[in-house]
Amino acid sequence: MPAELNAEQRKALEEEIKVLGDEIRKMKAEKAEPAVIKERVNKMLEKKKELGGTEEKPGKFVLKTGKGTRDYGPAQSALRNSVLQNVVETFNKYGAETIDTPVFELRDVLMGKYGEEGGKLVYDLQDQGGELLSLRYDLTVPFARYLAMNKITNITRYQIAKVYRRDQPVMTRGRYREFYQCDFDIAGQYDLMLPESECLGIVHELLTKLEIGEFFINLNHRLILEGMFAVSGISPKDFKSICSSVDKLDKTQWVEVEEEMIKEKFLTKEQTEKLGQLVRFRELNSGLSNLELLEKMSQLPELGQNEKFKKGAEELKVLIGYLDVDGVTSVRYEPSLARGLDYYTGAIYEAVAPKALEGTAVEKSEETAGQPVGVGSVAAGGRYDGLVNMFDAKLKVPCCGVSFGIERLFAIMEARQKNTVRTTQTEVYVASAQKNLVLERKKLLRTLRAAGIKSEMPLKANPKLLTQFQYAEERRIPLVVLIGERELQEGIVKLRNVDVPLDSLVSTIRDALAAL
Amino acid sequence: MPAELNAEQRKALEEEIKVLGDEIRKMKAEKAEPAVIKERVNKMLEKKKELGGTEEKPGKFVLKTGKGTRDYGPAQSALRNSVLQNVVETFNKYGAETIDTPVFELRDVLMGKYGEEGGKLVYDLQDQGGELLSLRYDLTVPFARYLAMNKITNITRYQIAKVYRRDQPVMTRGRYREFYQCDFDIAGQYDLMLPESECLGIVHELLTKLEIGEFFINLNHRLILEGMFAVSGISPKDFKSICSSVDKLDKTQWVEVEEEMIKEKFLTKEQTEKLGQLVRFRELNSGLSNLELLEKMSQLPELGQNEKFKKGAEELKVLIGYLDVDGVTSVRYEPSLARGLDYYTGAIYEAVAPKALEGTAVEKSEETAGQPVGVGSVAAGGRYDGLVNMFDAKLKVPCCGVSFGIERLFAIMEARQKNTVRTTQTEVYVASAQKNLVLERKKLLRTLRAAGIKSEMPLKANPKLLTQFQYAEERRIPLVVLIGERELQEGIVKLRNVDVPLDSLVSTIRDALAAL
Repeated sequence: MPAELNAEQRKALEEEIKVLGDEIRKMKAEKAEPAVIKERVNKMLEKKKELGGTEEKPGKFVLKTGKGTRDYGPAQSALRNSVLQNVVETFNKYGAETIDTPVFELRDVLMGKYGEEGGKLVYDLQDQGGELLSLRYDLTVPFARYLAMNKITNITRYQIAKVYRRDQPVMTRGRYREFYQCDFDIAGQYDLMLPESECLGIVHELLTKLEIGEFFINLNHRLILEGMFAVSGISPKDFKSICSSVDKLDKTQWVEVEEEMIKEKFLTKEQTEKLGQLVRFRELNSGLSNLELLEKMSQLPELGQNEKFKKGAEELKVLIGYLDVDGVTSVRYEPSLARGLDYYTGAIYEAVAPKALEGTAVEKSEETAGQPVGVGSVAAGGRYDGLVNMFDAKLKVPCCGVSFGIERLFAIMEARQKNTVRTTQTEVYVASAQKNLVLERKKLLRTLRAAGIKSEMPLKANPKLLTQFQYAEERRIPLVVLIGERELQEGIVKLRNVDVPLDSLVSTIRDALAAL
Repeated sequence: MPAELNAEQRKALEEEIKVLGDEIRKMKAEKAEPAVIKERVNKMLEKKKELGGTEEKPGKFVLKTGKGTRDYGPAQSALRNSVLQNVVETFNKYGAETIDTPVFELRDVLMGKYGEEGGKLVYDLQDQGGELLSLRYDLTVPFARYLAMNKITNITRYQIAKVYRRDQPVMTRGRYREFYQCDFDIAGQYDLMLPESECLGIVHELLTKLEIGEFFINLNHRLILEGMFAVSGISPKDFKSICSSVDKLDKTQWVEVEEEMIKEKFLTKEQTEKLGQLVRFRELNSGLSNLELLEKMSQLPELGQNEKFKKGAEELKVLIGYLDVDGVTSVRYEPSLARGLDYYTGAIYEAVAPKALEGTAVEKSEETAGQPVGVGSVAAGGRYDGLVNMFDAKLKVPCCGVSFGIERLFAIMEARQKNTVRTTQTEVYVASAQKNLVLERKKLLRTLRAAGIKSEMPLKANPKLLTQFQYAEERRIPLVVLIGERELQEGIVKLRNVDVPLDSLVSTIRDALAAL
């Protein structure tokens, strides 16, 4: 029951409801996404409820999903499953196993990694007696806990599951509080860069297969960043903070990044100028290959002598050599990539698909809204040798992996698809032309299903013929088997193609005639 | 940090630890399930931690999953996926769509159905500001919420997802707090018993396909139960309570059930005797077919005149007629089936596989432990026409469905499988006989993967030949491609079958010779 409101609170609420109403009308006029409109409507209904209006009868529920979450209806589920099928096939092709872990973990296990900052975004379960639990925030920590708990030192596994973050959701930009993650990791003591080449091979193969348009895999190494910072006179204690500025170079002009580093992070102009020459090395030397860039950087007087840079560059050269043999042509050495360095210890990589949304409805709507077009990274990963160690000081399990931005891939596939995905796999619809044929339809259905053919019939005793054809057409069921009194007498059925692609009209007719 | 303990508490804890230690030693000696032993060990570690012993260094985590939950490792995941693949294929064959809903719902939505009793078992999320949320308890309530929220009056959908119950877990009996449910439901205004026949068709087809041994689908109808109770002089207000006694007849002798109804539920001997003649009708008339049983019951003077019984029996006759045409031979009219009647409004059904564990290791261990052998129901469902209505008084969406006891099916498949399921799908392992062939192996791997062949190679620069063969053998990878200096010079590779089944030894050798 709503608490009593004073006149002022009541007025404020009424004002809010009015504003929401205006917004909704505007969105409807502009034909905004139904899900977005619904979210506003629900918000308005909640406000009305607070007002204690007459809308809400006692016992009636507010029918919505929790904030920042949504259902996947049949069309979204079908699309998602078709993407995931490609993903899983690729993982299987690379010899991966799969595991599954509980949706919640002991709170201590999760807090070990994220500390205070992450903790704010973690969903805690209520203390109902017993252990303190929280919903998983990613799949990496549960993976490390699984390895440490079972003393596993050697596994190549993928995991596809939902994770939870109490972030501010932005449904229009695809930012939700419940979303899928899709991780592939190689844990074990292997030889230099061989696991990394497998991870990047998967990224290249999968993004190619999904046909998301041109993509690149940016590649860098923690030791290269540390080396570049060192020769620019930047203190190691500023590593994380300066990384976060440098990493903006993919979206922001150098002048702005430089200004941020000087004004907010107190670097000197001399430091930023030195750093700029290095992190912008690809930009300033366009046209050079990955190996040429690394070679040329190695010849710089100071950097070329830095031990960290030398080690990082040597490792990347080995990796680039492998990727060349593997045919992973999309990889691009990018010294400004500086992400995830809380726990990455070696090579880092990130795949971007700048044109994935080009020409789609999403692009148009974002242009209209004045938002930047395109999606961010669609896959990211690197080497993290210290995580398992955190759970078991005696266990050394070097790991490297990649996490696909699977929700972004869903969004790209959704925007790029020409035809909507079919939501069922039904191949044949068993229809009848007259009444009282339900048992005859059932007999046919049994024959078809026994032969492994996916088939349906209307669950009505006496369905109308037109309704049946409409149903089959809407669902794009490729074949309709039609029976009537005459067909039964003659011992035949009518087989009708619901859709014939225009360009195979002639061949289809020829085939049909030949079969007579 | 553990709180200070007084001497008495300390002594009690030490005693508990000792008992646990004895248990663990005994279990190890008896070679109990590793997961079960681990659970005990973890419990002991926790107690030791409470004791503030020296075991736990500061900052070290208790490495366990939350109470009543567990990881699925690669072997369990592989088995689970192979079962689920069969399940999904069957659902697709029957024309189902799929949907996905969030793992948590607004608490009000969940509480609407379960009320106080269910509420105790529901995991609540902590109030971190914003909405009050709880983890889903089953998939039926989210489904009804989804239909009502989107005003969907017509859908055939399946959903496979984990649900959460804060029940007392019994890991040895497969009772967990986080477990999969697997639901198929038909919502919509259709003709009598046609949706039910689809649900039972799926149960029959899937259980046959999974080869779990002999199974039956028990079938009853709410109105038949109401009619039998009425003519036995039992008040409608006792319906639920007496149902719960009657439903025990599948595991308990009539005399015990009767005693419970008299002593605990205050029926008269006359009432129980009348009721017993009816609910035991199949038992007392063995050898009669489903239709004969219904016919014979309809001829009983009082019952045959009861309007509810008449309606229920008529409906089941229609259904049995359909199932006959569909070839669903496992169905068995069972007037004592009385389950789920909180919300079922029409036909109810439940599949049991009494011999599913016969001859398996599980059976033996349960016999030793003196526990009843076998699993309970492996699928259950019925018609529930009122649930969606509860969320939206204006929306009438008749539903019927079936929920597979998928965790039980996993357990049965695990116990019955002769060979462990392969955890990877790798078809070819690319090995090398000498050193320095990593690039040559990579080239071969690229060729194979480009052709869609699932292949792996050791991620070591110079792996030992024996290690490679052992790996391929352990993983049961069917083919090994072997290269060495000589092969490279001659432009060939060695292709080696890792395993040849004994009974195809000759044919395999002949094929190999023929291919030379």
